[in-house]
Amino acid sequence: MRKTNRYAWLLALSMPMAAMAQEKVDLEMMKKIREEGLQRSQVMDIAFNLTDKSGNRLTNSAGYARAANYAKEALTSWGVSNATLDPWGEFGKGWDLEKAYVAITAPYYKPILAWPKTWTAGTKGLKNAEIMVVEAKDTLAIQAYSGKLKNKILIIDQLNEYKHSFKADAVRYTDEQLARMAAVTPAPPNPAGPGAGPAIRGSLNVAARALNLLKAMAQKEGAIGMFTSATRNHDGTIFAQGGGAYKGSDPENFLDMALGIEDYNTILRLAKSGTPVKMDVDVKTKFQDKDLQGYNVIAEIPGTDPLLKDEIVMIGAHLDSWQTGTGATDNASGSAVMMEAMRILKTLGIQPRRTIRIGLWSGEEQGLLGSRGYVKKTFADPANMQPLPAHEKFSAYYNIDNGTGKIRGIYLQGNTECKDIFSAWLAPFNDLGATTVTISNTGGTDHQAFDGVGLPGFQFIQDPIEYDTRTHHSNMDVYDHLIADDLKQIATIVAAFTYNTAQRDAKLPRKPMPKPRN
Amino acid sequence: MRKTNRYAWLLALSMPMAAMAQEKVDLEMMKKIREEGLQRSQVMDIAFNLTDKSGNRLTNSAGYARAANYAKEALTSWGVSNATLDPWGEFGKGWDLEKAYVAITAPYYKPILAWPKTWTAGTKGLKNAEIMVVEAKDTLAIQAYSGKLKNKILIIDQLNEYKHSFKADAVRYTDEQLARMAAVTPAPPNPAGPGAGPAIRGSLNVAARALNLLKAMAQKEGAIGMFTSATRNHDGTIFAQGGGAYKGSDPENFLDMALGIEDYNTILRLAKSGTPVKMDVDVKTKFQDKDLQGYNVIAEIPGTDPLLKDEIVMIGAHLDSWQTGTGATDNASGSAVMMEAMRILKTLGIQPRRTIRIGLWSGEEQGLLGSRGYVKKTFADPANMQPLPAHEKFSAYYNIDNGTGKIRGIYLQGNTECKDIFSAWLAPFNDLGATTVTISNTGGTDHQAFDGVGLPGFQFIQDPIEYDTRTHHSNMDVYDHLIADDLKQIATIVAAFTYNTAQRDAKLPRKPMPKPRN
Repeated sequence: MRKTNRYAWLLALSMPMAAMAQEKVDLEMMKKIREEGLQRSQVMDIAFNLTDKSGNRLTNSAGYARAANYAKEALTSWGVSNATLDPWGEFGKGWDLEKAYVAITAPYYKPILAWPKTWTAGTKGLKNAEIMVVEAKDTLAIQAYSGKLKNKILIIDQLNEYKHSFKADAVRYTDEQLARMAAVTPAPPNPAGPGAGPAIRGSLNVAARALNLLKAMAQKEGAIGMFTSATRNHDGTIFAQGGGAYKGSDPENFLDMALGIEDYNTILRLAKSGTPVKMDVDVKTKFQDKDLQGYNVIAEIPGTDPLLKDEIVMIGAHLDSWQTGTGATDNASGSAVMMEAMRILKTLGIQPRRTIRIGLWSGEEQGLLGSRGYVKKTFADPANMQPLPAHEKFSAYYNIDNGTGKIRGIYLQGNTECKDIFSAWLAPFNDLGATTVTISNTGGTDHQAFDGVGLPGFQFIQDPIEYDTRTHHSNMDVYDHLIADDLKQIATIVAAFTYNTAQRDAKLPRKPMPKPRN
Repeated sequence: MRKTNRYAWLLALSMPMAAMAQEKVDLEMMKKIREEGLQRSQVMDIAFNLTDKSGNRLTNSAGYARAANYAKEALTSWGVSNATLDPWGEFGKGWDLEKAYVAITAPYYKPILAWPKTWTAGTKGLKNAEIMVVEAKDTLAIQAYSGKLKNKILIIDQLNEYKHSFKADAVRYTDEQLARMAAVTPAPPNPAGPGAGPAIRGSLNVAARALNLLKAMAQKEGAIGMFTSATRNHDGTIFAQGGGAYKGSDPENFLDMALGIEDYNTILRLAKSGTPVKMDVDVKTKFQDKDLQGYNVIAEIPGTDPLLKDEIVMIGAHLDSWQTGTGATDNASGSAVMMEAMRILKTLGIQPRRTIRIGLWSGEEQGLLGSRGYVKKTFADPANMQPLPAHEKFSAYYNIDNGTGKIRGIYLQGNTECKDIFSAWLAPFNDLGATTVTISNTGGTDHQAFDGVGLPGFQFIQDPIEYDTRTHHSNMDVYDHLIADDLKQIATIVAAFTYNTAQRDAKLPRKPMPKPRN
């Protein structure tokens, strides 16, 4: 903080309070949290340990184990209790990359950055082979290649247009955008149920089926691997995710590698122009199938109020990542700020009325698996919506999973009764840019596991920065793309919300219990 | 062109002419050039051959030879005369990359894109070795590492801060910026002479000397290689240039590799935190030292006017590139539009009064060597400024070397007498965004070789696009970063300027002859 602004926040504290006199806020504690969080932050050291030190954190990989054990030990070292790697159910196999070398060798030599998708097989040593262009518009087109795939490296006949970036990669929300979010009125419920998106288009289905057929044929015939790309893989930034099934009983998947569009298009143009393209490919992958369980990291600060200590406030974020970067903004950032929030609260020596618990989830990238497993065994199974005893004693869950951008407010997930409460809680942090409470939902991450069984589950509004353009599931999701000041702000506000939820006389209001899924 | 705009340019042609009645423009020919250049362009096919098909075009590399031979053959196939690979003097060795594989192997595996700098040695096979952090602030600091470098991979102790891109990578000039350029008045001559920049700062000198000492020690003691980076190497975009001397008698240079800052910083942070970092490095480089001559590609459309056919109009661009990409915007774009301009003029069957000659230069990246060599042997040696006979018969040289962006105008290089001429020549293309004539100089490329001996040498104003942010000397300088519509516009306007210069009654006005350099 700059010295000239040293007391600006005090002014910010005192003003909006009058309007929301009904919601008490401990301003002295807010001040302490703020000082610890902004001036003595350890969030970047935590982030360093989760990223550079651990490597990627694909669920059940060696990197995930390093990060989870670090988190458990760090939380314990700060005095957080009962830190444990908590099994939530069967996930499947771990997968680690042990070698990836890819290069064009003819018509000239050029090294290529190519990222194998997760759970794919290797090449059994260095292979040099010719590129074969495959037209994959439907399964019929694929069948024409039957018997021709042995020892070939396959590339799909689809150029990806490079679009020059006339817009900035990184953005923050404008005041106008935030005002629009705040002005949203409750939408009618989606008749198709929560999370239902538009139907998958027929053409996508056809293409996906064609690709699956190609992979099956290629594996059977002994092709070496295949390249795929997408328009957003440009400037050396490459997005890559899963390459197939990963259950204990699933076979290894055919080697499928993500390339930057520049290299992809070069190879494709050359091959289609009649120039034979030869390439070196040497990929080695390792499957971990000794322990198929998935594990979350759970730890807590026990409650101290005799009447409320069995009640729970939770904060969390997913700890797992995809494979190409080190999941810095997706979601070491969320995990680091949640750990830092616990550290701040322990360092301040708070004795919370309710128990404060942190959950660092695995398997989020494969469908919120870790948080859903935890919720199912602890609070309620969404299949039958029969609440377990802990369901009644739960106040709220707060999640961070939208990158490195600072908090600009919070999504209510349709829980209108929390609006004034959260507005009052944000007031001491309005000067840090956190002002907006929107009735809107936001999806795609672990607060949905709680929301889905009728528990108050919230995610904060964060500045987008370059989440969609550069980091989300890409090789650029690494430590240097984090913004330290933003992470400090997030941890501070999360610690404050957590404290307020733990100390409040009543639990947070709830929406009605949803209907069972089955 | 969109049909609705089909005749808009005719309007543009007719209006500004009145103001510049003194300079005749053959509007019927301008229309033909425009139709051939915009509607039947081959510029992207030419660019494909110079980039994807040839590979990088480092001077005297195999890729340069492929591109130069292609250019010679293509020009000949269009009917351009006397196409030849024209030696301009001794350049030095060629250099080609034959293998580059780099990966972190401990504390976990991660493949890394690392670009060896040109004219560096390889590793003699795959080496796995530990990273050693070197503080390189001055030569004294370096001496502390004496005797400790054997079998180490070196990294300089200097973090490069990642700056999120809150500005767009790609930009075009605004009307306001162009108006400012047009309003520039002639500056007083630089007393230090042309091309004299600010003095190199002492600290740079110290760091550069320290680095050179480190390389010499490392090579002597048997270190494996070193990593360097720079702040602009981000998002997977890596800039890399020369790694040392390249004359026939120079020894191989110590292996110096450019990394993205994300990987560089990760390795450095890990090593400095006390985590041993081990890496695989396998680099093979090849030196071509059989023919040390440098070659330009020269070809011409002979003049037909008995009184003027010995006079010369030249157009040109450098054909050579650095090694990481395929030099698409630096400067396949320039070479392709110049070749395309020749094709347009030949296709239209013009019988120029003066001879039109194209020069595609080599060695530009090492100091405008090819164009300077050509000018010295053909027109005048800047050391003595004694004009050869061809000097008197030269009208003008036009150059393109600022990326893929379309022409917005032209730099006069201080030649004020050309202002009205060029304004009249641009008028038929004002509707394509080319409007501005500025008295300003622009430097750093081959028109300086001509300007330096008193010959009219010009470079066009081009939209910057992402030349400085993504492509200029980086691995992203590849075909997909070209903009087809912009290149068509450039070729069209260059063909028009070339035609006008060839047909004009008088040669273009000249500035006074400069003083000899020696």
